[in-house]
Amino acid sequence: MSDLPKSIRINEEGPREGFQFEKGPIPTARKIELIDALSDTGLKQIQVASFVPPQNVPGWVDADDVVAGFQVNPAVSYTALWLNERGLQRALGHDDRLQLLGSIGLCCSAAFLAINQKRTMEQNFEGQRSIIKMYQANGLPVTRGSLMAAFGCNFQGDVAPATVVDMVGQLLDLAAEAGETLEFVSLADTMAWASPLSIRRVVGAIRDRFPDLTLSLHLHDTRGMGIANVYSGLQMGVEIYDAAVAGLGGCPFAAHKGAAGNVCTEDVVFLCDEMGIETGIDLERLMQAACVAEDVVGHPLPGSVKSGGSLRVLREKLRAAH
Amino acid sequence: MSDLPKSIRINEEGPREGFQFEKGPIPTARKIELIDALSDTGLKQIQVASFVPPQNVPGWVDADDVVAGFQVNPAVSYTALWLNERGLQRALGHDDRLQLLGSIGLCCSAAFLAINQKRTMEQNFEGQRSIIKMYQANGLPVTRGSLMAAFGCNFQGDVAPATVVDMVGQLLDLAAEAGETLEFVSLADTMAWASPLSIRRVVGAIRDRFPDLTLSLHLHDTRGMGIANVYSGLQMGVEIYDAAVAGLGGCPFAAHKGAAGNVCTEDVVFLCDEMGIETGIDLERLMQAACVAEDVVGHPLPGSVKSGGSLRVLREKLRAAH
Repeated sequence: MSDLPKSIRINEEGPREGFQFEKGPIPTARKIELIDALSDTGLKQIQVASFVPPQNVPGWVDADDVVAGFQVNPAVSYTALWLNERGLQRALGHDDRLQLLGSIGLCCSAAFLAINQKRTMEQNFEGQRSIIKMYQANGLPVTRGSLMAAFGCNFQGDVAPATVVDMVGQLLDLAAEAGETLEFVSLADTMAWASPLSIRRVVGAIRDRFPDLTLSLHLHDTRGMGIANVYSGLQMGVEIYDAAVAGLGGCPFAAHKGAAGNVCTEDVVFLCDEMGIETGIDLERLMQAACVAEDVVGHPLPGSVKSGGSLRVLREKLRAAH
Repeated sequence: MSDLPKSIRINEEGPREGFQFEKGPIPTARKIELIDALSDTGLKQIQVASFVPPQNVPGWVDADDVVAGFQVNPAVSYTALWLNERGLQRALGHDDRLQLLGSIGLCCSAAFLAINQKRTMEQNFEGQRSIIKMYQANGLPVTRGSLMAAFGCNFQGDVAPATVVDMVGQLLDLAAEAGETLEFVSLADTMAWASPLSIRRVVGAIRDRFPDLTLSLHLHDTRGMGIANVYSGLQMGVEIYDAAVAGLGGCPFAAHKGAAGNVCTEDVVFLCDEMGIETGIDLERLMQAACVAEDVVGHPLPGSVKSGGSLRVLREKLRAAH
């Protein structure tokens, strides 16, 4: 058995992904209620809003109000998403509440880029150079790299591990030529093509070439492989995971009716709790936040542990009874 | 990495578990429709009915009619469940259609036995001796052993691997003293306490003591760990899995509102397909059967791949387009 990590870090993306995806409208106060509930769980990073044009993403028309309204827990880093200079400027208006860091991203599928962003791989690469300049002009370090479609693409098919290794190299080069150092690279299974075996192969191939690089996984659960893929990542020593409370969200890119959101945060925490891996998160509180999420969106959400129950409380009751 | 098995066998339990669990009533013809759909998928074993007292399990009041009514595919072994001599006699009335084999079962939790069956571990052990005699009197070999609550119990807590090893020994002894040989032992995670790590530990401990014993896993998905637990079983070389199409069923024992059924068959097949493990099952046909299951019960069922879609067809379309 590969050694499992002693602890992992979870980047909660439920609010940002969920309120982008849900039909809504959802009152601003209820979005804030969920963020406040999440702030009280031990999560150390929560992505709270998306500064994108409201005509594209009506669910985030109130991003400024949401970010101005939640109660800041100093133990939590609050982050946000933006896609261009205008979005970044809006986020900079909240730099007392948000942790603002630069990130660059490439995509492992030329077909996906062509269809979703109307650009070639080369154009996208050049675009990232401009993005780095934008961050540098605003005094933000570029610390995060990400690779979309790192395990496969609905428009192109499987992605070879060697391709992903090459793309990781391109990301690192992009940062280095601009004098930036990425803290980690996130591998996104944007369209839910990953299996535990492909996680193992891709992460292993990257490790062989870049042994000191910290990796993160962003896993969609469309085909029910999410938790198994996290387990495979844990076996490979990956220590950072994106997740969404209650399984909020979906994949808006894939033109795919059954597309599911990120792997569910409380299910990931349960997995870790049961295997002795520290997350710093109180699962009972997180399950309460998951119930808030369900109440806020007004329909059942896919996570299992929020209805199945954790085992910690059950164990405590049994111990007390004996 | 442990070597993954080249192929596995799936024992489909959806019809028996599902029609026991669903509130119903479900017309007999529709139950038969699901069994016929499953017969056409490549599944080699389907548990089609439960010969239990109708006052206890109203959903199986029509077990005789269901068993008499489905279309036999000679490539499939059809099995049924019974809990006593009367049930066995009903099953024997269908011995031209059903594969009838004897099985014995013990439970790793004394508390579960006391609460659910009002008997002690010793009484249960003695009861299995009587059951073996019943099979022998009816000319049926005893080929299967099972252990309930092999990973934990809502009424007792965690179960130590050493306890499970001891219980496996008791099962083997029970069979041997009666001149019977078990073909395999099934470890049931009756109340969904298993994690990938406990699967690894329990299976490993049994392997250390009984290296030649074939094992099977029966995994409930209440806490969302089902597929990850199957993956852990695969990594440990386990080659037989119970599963339920579309995730039909629930756990009627656990007095547990959120209790889920067995791990979903088509999600297990997807997992195996993506890792090159043969199941003999046509995933597309199985997904159609899963849609039949949902239609028959009249509400959404938990499996993911039936809505998320397989990748084989997508890959074929992409290849054809290039």
